Amino acid sequence: MLVSGRNYRTVWMEGSSVFMIEQNLLPFEFKIFKSKNYRETCKAIRSMLVRGAGAIGSAAGFAMAQAFLETSNPDLILKAKEDIESTRPTAQNLFYATNLVYDLASRASQPQLEAVKIANSIADKDSEDSLEIGKYGNQLISQKAGILTHCNAGWLAFTDHGTALSPIYLAQEQKKQIFVYVDETRPRSQGARLTAWELHNAGVPHAIIPDNAAAYYMQKGKIDLVITGADRIAANGDTANKIGTLEKAICAREFGIPFYIAAPTSTIDLACKTGDDIKIEERNEREVLFQKGHTASGSIKEIRIASPGSSAFNPAFDITPARFLTGIITEKGIIKPDQKIIAGIVS
Amino acid sequence: MLVSGRNYRTVWMEGSSVFMIEQNLLPFEFKIFKSKNYRETCKAIRSMLVRGAGAIGSAAGFAMAQAFLETSNPDLILKAKEDIESTRPTAQNLFYATNLVYDLASRASQPQLEAVKIANSIADKDSEDSLEIGKYGNQLISQKAGILTHCNAGWLAFTDHGTALSPIYLAQEQKKQIFVYVDETRPRSQGARLTAWELHNAGVPHAIIPDNAAAYYMQKGKIDLVITGADRIAANGDTANKIGTLEKAICAREFGIPFYIAAPTSTIDLACKTGDDIKIEERNEREVLFQKGHTASGSIKEIRIASPGSSAFNPAFDITPARFLTGIITEKGIIKPDQKIIAGIVS
Repeated sequence: MLVSGRNYRTVWMEGSSVFMIEQNLLPFEFKIFKSKNYRETCKAIRSMLVRGAGAIGSAAGFAMAQAFLETSNPDLILKAKEDIESTRPTAQNLFYATNLVYDLASRASQPQLEAVKIANSIADKDSEDSLEIGKYGNQLISQKAGILTHCNAGWLAFTDHGTALSPIYLAQEQKKQIFVYVDETRPRSQGARLTAWELHNAGVPHAIIPDNAAAYYMQKGKIDLVITGADRIAANGDTANKIGTLEKAICAREFGIPFYIAAPTSTIDLACKTGDDIKIEERNEREVLFQKGHTASGSIKEIRIASPGSSAFNPAFDITPARFLTGIITEKGIIKPDQKIIAGIVS
Repeated sequence: MLVSGRNYRTVWMEGSSVFMIEQNLLPFEFKIFKSKNYRETCKAIRSMLVRGAGAIGSAAGFAMAQAFLETSNPDLILKAKEDIESTRPTAQNLFYATNLVYDLASRASQPQLEAVKIANSIADKDSEDSLEIGKYGNQLISQKAGILTHCNAGWLAFTDHGTALSPIYLAQEQKKQIFVYVDETRPRSQGARLTAWELHNAGVPHAIIPDNAAAYYMQKGKIDLVITGADRIAANGDTANKIGTLEKAICAREFGIPFYIAAPTSTIDLACKTGDDIKIEERNEREVLFQKGHTASGSIKEIRIASPGSSAFNPAFDITPARFLTGIITEKGIIKPDQKIIAGIVS
């Protein structure tokens, strides 16, 4: 997508280096981070310098390729794979990417070349899938629709285009006069920081709302459609996504509003029979108790926003049971969250 | 309630001055503001230096008394009443207080003495009602209960004791080993700042959670009971409370968790037939886009936390339809949110 007139992906590889948009500096600074080895790329994933289901997958694939470039010792490569997979345990795309690069490169005659090739193809496929998701999802968007989205499943969360926002970009191109309600998405505020930044860049009319206000706008009839991304989808359709997705899905059903998950089929993990099998990452309480932002003078400051004597809980994701989903928008079409249909589309 | 060993109310009157805990400095500083006239008290209400249903009511009653002390011109007193009533249009207790002081003092032989007397009696009644609410609400709290609360309906929101937190303080005194999940309550974070501060002061085990995480803990079976306050209750039981209350109520019903509103009967406005008649205050978008807090060096800084190109919507309250409420905990007992029962308890 365009940033100041230049086309960017969120993550890409040149030589043995991986380049990533520093998402934890957005929306206040736009900078590119250059990672010289797989350990630096792991650190970038863990610290959420790069974040979002597809972008994590691409970054993990590139990290795996970096490991192949750094050593030909199978034990060290396996150790690297484990290191990469320990960075963000809920992200299905991460495991999909490390496994694919590892399996194909390990048995190739030229493992290094193959690893880089596969990693690049994962990133390309992620971008192409996102575009397809956009085309299918756009069919759900009527003229003047009010659309709610949670967290960031835009192009920043993928290699390009995004999933939940990809249909929105197409609808905007087709001048459908849509309006997007952007959940702030505490505690890391990916909605207020990243989704709002993306939509502003793309000229899509929108407003940030407190997470608490989603049901208010549903009740007022302002929301015609909810689209969010997914971090992992179980075989039965139960979906792990950013904390708060469950609340929005429950409220959408209460008000009879269609609720869609937009995700490539690589997000589906048939090894997880239901959402109960999905591990939920608990992150540091500092993300809830403190917040970073820009002061009037332009410097980035971290401030404590909660009572000094208190602790916080910080689960990063929740599980939305399949029964709350109207459908899943994939690169292969829009499917019902049904076990048989899901199995069919993955195979 | 005790602060550093000394007993405080949130608002009180001495001579012609009104004293208020500066709630917008909490939890980082504990300071008392002295308001010398009704206009300063209006400003304190509007700026949310004093906030919360009951505390606003007491402050408004004292402001009305200040107006009587400042002038004996009936037109100016009526103008003052209008000024006070324009500060926070959703707060039922505010109108209750201004009307009661105005009506009784206007027809008294010594309007000034009467105004001060009535204003003080409103504050005393608010404190007594809160204690009664605590006793009734405590009956709902079982041993080792997990309790979710939203925003701040603690003693800071009233003259003393609070409503939603009053039962919690009694349960804690009775060593029920409760645990309180404190919704952060964006955008003004009254949960993370005020409720957490209160619970920490009182030694009640608790954790702040992002508003997005409430359904997550409900789904995990950690929440046995939800108690929130109310800013206005319509004749049919529809309840205006802090934005986000509606989401929590919808989710609580989904998971079969009892959802209670705790509020004195003065919060009930029979003139509002349903929630549709309750005016919702839309506040400045800055509350969503910026946040204030403490830096490591101890100074208070305001930072921008959202993408610079984007705007925000900021509705301060939402309406929870009566059908989502298990009951309303009042100073007269716990009632069903039923039109006839409500009319009976108010009269």
